[in-house]
Amino acid sequence: MTAQTMHPDGTAGVVGLVGLGLIGGSLGLDLRARGWDVRGLVRRESTAERASQRGLAGRVSTDPSVLAGCRLVVLALPLDQLLAPDPALLAALPPDAVITDVGSVKAPVLRTWQGIVPRFVASHPMAGTAEAGVEAGVRHLFRGRPWVVTPTPDTDPAALELVRTLSEAVEARWLLCDPQAHDRAVALISHLPVLVGAALLQAADRGAVAAPASGDGQAGYEQVDTEARALVRALASSGFADTTRVGGGNPELGALMARCNREQLLAALASYRRSLDQLEGLLQQERWADLREALAAGQRLRPEFL
Amino acid sequence: MTAQTMHPDGTAGVVGLVGLGLIGGSLGLDLRARGWDVRGLVRRESTAERASQRGLAGRVSTDPSVLAGCRLVVLALPLDQLLAPDPALLAALPPDAVITDVGSVKAPVLRTWQGIVPRFVASHPMAGTAEAGVEAGVRHLFRGRPWVVTPTPDTDPAALELVRTLSEAVEARWLLCDPQAHDRAVALISHLPVLVGAALLQAADRGAVAAPASGDGQAGYEQVDTEARALVRALASSGFADTTRVGGGNPELGALMARCNREQLLAALASYRRSLDQLEGLLQQERWADLREALAAGQRLRPEFL
Repeated sequence: MTAQTMHPDGTAGVVGLVGLGLIGGSLGLDLRARGWDVRGLVRRESTAERASQRGLAGRVSTDPSVLAGCRLVVLALPLDQLLAPDPALLAALPPDAVITDVGSVKAPVLRTWQGIVPRFVASHPMAGTAEAGVEAGVRHLFRGRPWVVTPTPDTDPAALELVRTLSEAVEARWLLCDPQAHDRAVALISHLPVLVGAALLQAADRGAVAAPASGDGQAGYEQVDTEARALVRALASSGFADTTRVGGGNPELGALMARCNREQLLAALASYRRSLDQLEGLLQQERWADLREALAAGQRLRPEFL
Repeated sequence: MTAQTMHPDGTAGVVGLVGLGLIGGSLGLDLRARGWDVRGLVRRESTAERASQRGLAGRVSTDPSVLAGCRLVVLALPLDQLLAPDPALLAALPPDAVITDVGSVKAPVLRTWQGIVPRFVASHPMAGTAEAGVEAGVRHLFRGRPWVVTPTPDTDPAALELVRTLSEAVEARWLLCDPQAHDRAVALISHLPVLVGAALLQAADRGAVAAPASGDGQAGYEQVDTEARALVRALASSGFADTTRVGGGNPELGALMARCNREQLLAALASYRRSLDQLEGLLQQERWADLREALAAGQRLRPEFL
């Protein structure tokens, strides 16, 4: 960190958090525990009150002027709000402040923000729980988790250093990458699994009654649809539960990610289809040794992703 | 249970276990703890010795004649051995014994065994761990888990009752269904997730470098393939791990299930493709409200399968 960005007290100076949900609230708790001067901007009075009680920031307000004097502002907002920023928020951002965000898709955020503020750094701290809202913030959410930043040639190096100070204060792992590469990677490992799991849930529901009978092994009693649907539910075990966990998650979030990362998600789907086509081909052609080898390749790959 | 099948001591009489791996060994431990008279048939002398030490059966042998006098024989063998039974085993089965199996696909097992032995009952106790072999058997593996049986018009009702006694002795949940409906259900909830997860692993590996660059958000440095591959691995989190758990599992087992349940798995894949096509269509046509609704339907469905 350069002298230019380091505040005399060793912190990043006054930090503003826009939004005090899971990410903003967790940042506030960690930073305040380290003695940082934290301001919070929220939309609702009731949220401001509860955030103050929880100590998520030293000062919390619904008035954007609470950001005056901040050297660093973290936009801890959902992607849709990041991509259509509130004019009152824009007007309140100190002109020389470093602005960063926490959005899970980076190219569209950069397209929006690099034209608006001079010192923008695109961040994606990759941490989370299933919780949301003012009660969700917890200590140590970011400890050991990646804090991905996607600088461009236009990114101010001193601004980047200030965000790095922030990531270190919450004990995250600093990870630099290209914005496109980031968006492609999260499409594959975060957004594609949502569609894959959702499709599996639908197939398990619909496929129970859609498959053609092949005529042998008949039990001599009528198999009605409701029985077939009950059976797949009765037989589903932990493997099915795991495979569909993210596919059965928050639909608002899933649809928002898909909307904001549409191109990369379509490319990821195309790649996935090629893999699935190949496996299906082996099954159709009864190439059992090749199918076993393809599954063995997956078994070898998986630990690399854990 | 009828008087005809009930043994005077309240057990099913002498029970033979063919194979003392995870399923056979776990059955042996539970049944012996209840005072049942259990015989074990295994292939290797070393396995017989270890199985005896572990107390998986009262008598363990590599000689099929150990099954003489058994009123019930459980074929706790892998599917490939079930579908191509050893002639020495067939010759040793007591002609009036009730024979059942533990295979995870039922129509092909019935096709094989109903022509060979007069009193066959097709079973699929749905319990398991990641372990296999003579060390794998544990107490209470079946407690509260489904013991699926798939009787046909040819199934001897007294034989069915004897298998029910067995399932109750290990505290499993008795579940009767049609063989085809069973195979269709396990294709959807057990075998399809293997292919879905394996394809996702391959896509995450290949797709990292296959996606086209869209030209914006360039960082001005060369993104080499190895960097992209490392990035998807660095960013993968618990959601990806869960979605690919069964897809990254035992490839021998995965390929064997696919081989033995090929028709139903192809039908399940067709159903899955229809669901995935629909989701992809919503993404392509930017129908975000409909995509959100489709994901919400998955979110509502999932608890029914848990």
